[in-house]
Amino acid sequence: MTADWDGAAWSRERVSLVNRWLEEAVERRAGGTRIREAMHYALMAGGKRLRPLLVLAAGEAMDPRSERWREPAVAVEFIHTYSLIHDDLPAMDDDDLRRGRPTCHKVFGEAQAILAGDALLTEAFGVLAEARAQWPAAAVADAVALLAEAAGARGLVDGQARDLAAEGQAVGLADLEAIHRRKTGALITAAARLPAVLAGQAAWDAALGAYGRHVGLAFQIADDILNVVGDPKMLGKPTGTDDAHDKATYPRLLGLEGARRRAEDEVAAARASLEGLRGTEALIWLATAAVDRER
Amino acid sequence: MTADWDGAAWSRERVSLVNRWLEEAVERRAGGTRIREAMHYALMAGGKRLRPLLVLAAGEAMDPRSERWREPAVAVEFIHTYSLIHDDLPAMDDDDLRRGRPTCHKVFGEAQAILAGDALLTEAFGVLAEARAQWPAAAVADAVALLAEAAGARGLVDGQARDLAAEGQAVGLADLEAIHRRKTGALITAAARLPAVLAGQAAWDAALGAYGRHVGLAFQIADDILNVVGDPKMLGKPTGTDDAHDKATYPRLLGLEGARRRAEDEVAAARASLEGLRGTEALIWLATAAVDRER
Repeated sequence: MTADWDGAAWSRERVSLVNRWLEEAVERRAGGTRIREAMHYALMAGGKRLRPLLVLAAGEAMDPRSERWREPAVAVEFIHTYSLIHDDLPAMDDDDLRRGRPTCHKVFGEAQAILAGDALLTEAFGVLAEARAQWPAAAVADAVALLAEAAGARGLVDGQARDLAAEGQAVGLADLEAIHRRKTGALITAAARLPAVLAGQAAWDAALGAYGRHVGLAFQIADDILNVVGDPKMLGKPTGTDDAHDKATYPRLLGLEGARRRAEDEVAAARASLEGLRGTEALIWLATAAVDRER
Repeated sequence: MTADWDGAAWSRERVSLVNRWLEEAVERRAGGTRIREAMHYALMAGGKRLRPLLVLAAGEAMDPRSERWREPAVAVEFIHTYSLIHDDLPAMDDDDLRRGRPTCHKVFGEAQAILAGDALLTEAFGVLAEARAQWPAAAVADAVALLAEAAGARGLVDGQARDLAAEGQAVGLADLEAIHRRKTGALITAAARLPAVLAGQAAWDAALGAYGRHVGLAFQIADDILNVVGDPKMLGKPTGTDDAHDKATYPRLLGLEGARRRAEDEVAAARASLEGLRGTEALIWLATAAVDRER
């Protein structure tokens, strides 16, 4: 890592870029439709953009032109946003607030929220297919397969189903990891891997797969810790809700200090996965930022 | 059309084949997950399989080996089934019965139904990406783009959003067609076109696009007519619901006879779209069957 490398500046610039891409993608794919506004509201709620930043950090290590990674960056944020909209629904986690604002169904009603989620999920694949203007078609087809696997019945959806089933049950560390590997880990890992798949870089793909799994877990542990010690104003949502719902979390299973140590171990393992590769400053910075954060 | 060509037998054999493919696809992509059962229940409810039959009818005209068209056939039925699950939800159409059985959320609860729909939608793209074992990757990427467009914010989802918004409104014939072109027409058209896209057959693609638009409309008009004069036992759901909900339909706008004539016109136009092409027996039979049916 170069001594003067400014991760905060890198991240700030990329978040602006991603936000512009997201605006353009919604307009291009949903402009003039009845569902555009709900999609836009949920997408532009000011998220951290961790997943598109992972795409860019991994991608720029292989090709520094950010534009080359536009489609996978937009696709993973579309998927992430759809999953938040559906997770917040009354039949699911029944959350009224997200990032300090009313959740999508609170503003647009349940029907529109379900449809906005469906549209974002579907359009994610449409956006990713657009990458065939930049990358070989075989790589794009592989990328579609990877994203479907990460988001589908054995990935994100299974994680959410397991999480709902675990409510009020005795959940051990192995179960907790099985949930999070799917619910947050699968898409985070896919975000890190997609650029390597598009660029056909097998060595990067293996390293980024390991990196993504460690970062995903570190990120989730940090989320659990913030639910205990975070500032509700910074988080844009109440804290203490996991305890109130009697939910299994890393701090409950490992203690607050144990959870912090575990998160640090995962960050160290993520860094170690990248050894011997060049241009990994942003990836390393992001791994640390996934844990050292206030929201 | 050969005089002895038996459409009913062709259809029966293909439905069996499609059902086996669907069983295998659920097992392969969702086996061992918590969401498998709800996906399976909704998928195997005994639908007419119109969309996969369209894939096979169009595909077999270009290559008679049914197996070549497996992935697009499964993908369109996954998308169709997801759309039914979400449409039936309490926040949407709030239907308790579908094909004579309790709807997915009635059996598995709303959360599982939302997730089963999400999983089917996502896995549809995973299944379609599997077609790269049979077809050129560029064609598979084009097929993914086509399916995303048909199912996404300007297709199926916009149709459902417009349909919900139209409830209790004065809806004219142009509005009604705008709804149905998206809500049912887009996916039916995509089903007919996908084989031509995979096989890279531009002339077929144009003809099948026109054919699909006419069949889609004919099918929807027939649905509206069945809601007036159909047998609830055959349909597996109550009739008269459109009138009860004060819903705009073809029989209400054109009268029962006018609607029937319009459906016949669409079938004739669908047939005309195929003029000059060979091996179209199944496509012609399906266009007629979309209208002459009891369920």
